[in-house]
Amino acid sequence: MKTSSGRFFEDYAIGQVIEHAVPRTVSGGERALYHALYPARHALYSSDVFAAACGLEKSPLDDLIAFHVVFGKTVPDVSLNAVANLGYAEGRWLSPVFEGDTLRSVSEVIGLKQNSNGKSGVVWVRTTGFNQRDEAVLEYVRWVMVRKRDFDAPAPETVIPDLADVIDPTDLVIPEGLDFSDYNFTLAGEPHRFGDYEVGEKIDHVDGVTIEEAEHMVATRLWQNTAKVHFDATNREDGKRLIYGGHVISMARALSFNGLANAQMIVGLNGGAHANPCFAGDTVRAYSEVLDKAETAAPGVGAVRLRLVAYKHGAPEFALKTVAGKYHPDVLLDLDYWALMPI
Amino acid sequence: MKTSSGRFFEDYAIGQVIEHAVPRTVSGGERALYHALYPARHALYSSDVFAAACGLEKSPLDDLIAFHVVFGKTVPDVSLNAVANLGYAEGRWLSPVFEGDTLRSVSEVIGLKQNSNGKSGVVWVRTTGFNQRDEAVLEYVRWVMVRKRDFDAPAPETVIPDLADVIDPTDLVIPEGLDFSDYNFTLAGEPHRFGDYEVGEKIDHVDGVTIEEAEHMVATRLWQNTAKVHFDATNREDGKRLIYGGHVISMARALSFNGLANAQMIVGLNGGAHANPCFAGDTVRAYSEVLDKAETAAPGVGAVRLRLVAYKHGAPEFALKTVAGKYHPDVLLDLDYWALMPI
Amino acid sequence: MKTSSGRFFEDYAIGQVIEHAVPRTVSGGERALYHALYPARHALYSSDVFAAACGLEKSPLDDLIAFHVVFGKTVPDVSLNAVANLGYAEGRWLSPVFEGDTLRSVSEVIGLKQNSNGKSGVVWVRTTGFNQRDEAVLEYVRWVMVRKRDFDAPAPETVIPDLADVIDPTDLVIPEGLDFSDYNFTLAGEPHRFGDYEVGEKIDHVDGVTIEEAEHMVATRLWQNTAKVHFDATNREDGKRLIYGGHVISMARALSFNGLANAQMIVGLNGGAHANPCFAGDTVRAYSEVLDKAETAAPGVGAVRLRLVAYKHGAPEFALKTVAGKYHPDVLLDLDYWALMPI
Repeated sequence: MKTSSGRFFEDYAIGQVIEHAVPRTVSGGERALYHALYPARHALYSSDVFAAACGLEKSPLDDLIAFHVVFGKTVPDVSLNAVANLGYAEGRWLSPVFEGDTLRSVSEVIGLKQNSNGKSGVVWVRTTGFNQRDEAVLEYVRWVMVRKRDFDAPAPETVIPDLADVIDPTDLVIPEGLDFSDYNFTLAGEPHRFGDYEVGEKIDHVDGVTIEEAEHMVATRLWQNTAKVHFDATNREDGKRLIYGGHVISMARALSFNGLANAQMIVGLNGGAHANPCFAGDTVRAYSEVLDKAETAAPGVGAVRLRLVAYKHGAPEFALKTVAGKYHPDVLLDLDYWALMPI
Repeated sequence: MKTSSGRFFEDYAIGQVIEHAVPRTVSGGERALYHALYPARHALYSSDVFAAACGLEKSPLDDLIAFHVVFGKTVPDVSLNAVANLGYAEGRWLSPVFEGDTLRSVSEVIGLKQNSNGKSGVVWVRTTGFNQRDEAVLEYVRWVMVRKRDFDAPAPETVIPDLADVIDPTDLVIPEGLDFSDYNFTLAGEPHRFGDYEVGEKIDHVDGVTIEEAEHMVATRLWQNTAKVHFDATNREDGKRLIYGGHVISMARALSFNGLANAQMIVGLNGGAHANPCFAGDTVRAYSEVLDKAETAAPGVGAVRLRLVAYKHGAPEFALKTVAGKYHPDVLLDLDYWALMPI
Repeated sequence: MKTSSGRFFEDYAIGQVIEHAVPRTVSGGERALYHALYPARHALYSSDVFAAACGLEKSPLDDLIAFHVVFGKTVPDVSLNAVANLGYAEGRWLSPVFEGDTLRSVSEVIGLKQNSNGKSGVVWVRTTGFNQRDEAVLEYVRWVMVRKRDFDAPAPETVIPDLADVIDPTDLVIPEGLDFSDYNFTLAGEPHRFGDYEVGEKIDHVDGVTIEEAEHMVATRLWQNTAKVHFDATNREDGKRLIYGGHVISMARALSFNGLANAQMIVGLNGGAHANPCFAGDTVRAYSEVLDKAETAAPGVGAVRLRLVAYKHGAPEFALKTVAGKYHPDVLLDLDYWALMPI
């Protein structure tokens, strides 16, 4: 059998290191496509001149391009037989990615727990993305529920990794040279700075985008994410294609520009849940909640911890969970991240 | 309130200068997307070798990429609350845009006139696009009808700018070095030169393109145009998304290759009207009328003034206006521009 | 008449050389779009680092990008009035195409045969693509059935070119410097090497992609292929847009990664048939059959001859032809090519 049907739960072992296939050299093409697929407007990722004024060599590729490229490579090895993408933790952006960089991904299995039904289990991996100089550019933990191929395969010893609920802001990596002392709020698009945001504040980002099949497939392929559920309408009985959760993350993050234009760079991913599936025809909206704030060592640079919630048009204001503690059926995404903002 | 709901009529004042947000560095990605979204084939914007043979350093980005990037930045400040985009005038391309250039836009309010109903008014702005060397690359005037937030706000003094109906051809800026003396008509795709076109001549461009939602949204986002009417199907009662007028401009201009392959570079925008809204599913066709011709100082370079009309499939031949003087309901665009052509 | 309605059968003559219009400079934008439109994952076309480890200067643009760009230019001159695209032969990739290269196409008419009905005829052309250094990058023969404009035009002398059924593997051009001695199978995505494939072996590539209108139009325009049947829903009575056959070729080739990840570079096109039309909504799947194998002079590099069949979801396993010798109605493409693979 030459084709791969992906790994099953019994194929993973603690400490196993998986070098994911198909390294990728990124260019201005990926950036242009990203900005064509999402209403991305953060100035630091749009303009070489703006980025240089913030102390960077030039404008890096969007933080979420780096995430999607690194993540996409892991799909054939980690989530092809996944029943569910359960969570993220300890995500950190370690070095900006520029045009011409070549990215590859490596994952280590750090947790395993077979489900009581004996038919599936949870796999935790820590994934690191590297550039062509073998510098780590991104790392994160994610855990997925994966089917067993053979229900009679013995259960592995249960190992549940000890993961931080939140990245300590002192552990965030600020891109070398970043300096917001001379930040141009006019060109960035909004006057609101670090001091203007209060913990607990919620911002509805106003705009909405109705999702099309062609767009989410183009996006998902761009990251070389091959999971068939996103592309093959014959894969589900209802003929729907499930939208890659990362498409919703990028859409919501881009929509959050309206109110968070100065939350320029994502540097930490504390956690995240794809609360409900998203399908073409859904109109995606987003709101944010300020969860925390911290100063950093870089000049003029503060860190804000944000909850980013994507929801379908029609959800109640600031919907999140129901009284039963489950996600509201119109909530698509609940993401917890750290971003850098001028003080 | 951190989010912006855009400016209303009473927020504008004569002489006000608005520096628009989110500068943009363009690359081969923008060009490739442009050529993927429109059947653009003008050789000077397709081939470095052809452009060099015409005296340019290399192939610039399409003239309408420059227009859309500069225009897109103005949307959040000028037309987010626009009821209608009423017109364009005095548009001039001042310097070609190349890969790696960073564009930003600045507008000055040059006209104001409150409507008699007291609920809205017309705003005229002159917008200039600059590159990273602060050289102007493009300028144009447009006027829009904008809602008032507060109907009781006092009406401003009426100022209606004095705008040229047509740009005098001696005021057109020919790109430095442009030389059509050795123009390769074979590689350009058609033999017709300046002398072959007669004032009054009409050309139906034969081909049509049926518009898809995914395509116009990808295009509109690429220019960082954020107007919600283009993206959010819940925004109108009929569930339709209005197509960005610039999408129709680019589609019609690209279709006009068939018959005007040698009308290589747009250098002047005399006027334009988005005659009727365009929606996904419409099949767009185009015709042109030669309005005028002029020589230029550049070797082998003539200027032709063209009326470019985009219409929906089914419109009568060369449809424009009805006897009542209104645009025919199947006419989408009436654009008046100057283009450069080999003599 | 300024617009072109294309050449008709009586417009061709043996020995006629057609320089096709609109040369094209390609960039990372074309590559990113290609990888966004197809699930392309062959490592050599994805990573500069991987390509350099295989002896190339850097990652070339995908072999089928070169094909589509060269092919697209011929459409206005060869197939605008084609009733059918009948076949390909003697296709060879002669030199890799890199970002920044400018491609143009030239065709020579090498065969003509009027049909017995007197209303159409078959035209054979040999097309060569050149880069900016006038080096041939690709050549192939294709033949199409073209309508006559004037049924009374005299029939030309019948000339049927003598075309090889298969390119002799010693005639394949291996890119200069290519060396698979240190090939990284992990990064390439699969362990299967030249020796693991047996002549006669069939591989079903598992995955499927449901086709969208926006995607095939974006792809087809990117290659500046202007045939109206792909874009204009009013062109057919059933309102369908015919999908460019090259879109199906690229989709099938990309799907074949799963099982043929190491069939890195296409270097020969022995033949091909677009067996049945493809429309939006079809779910495209693919299988391959190993037809032959050959060694090459390059270190570590073998050549495999593959039949690539694209079919619609629902076709019987390994469907090809019916007992009557005609293509099964669910078969879309039957392509015969040589690819390079590590030994």
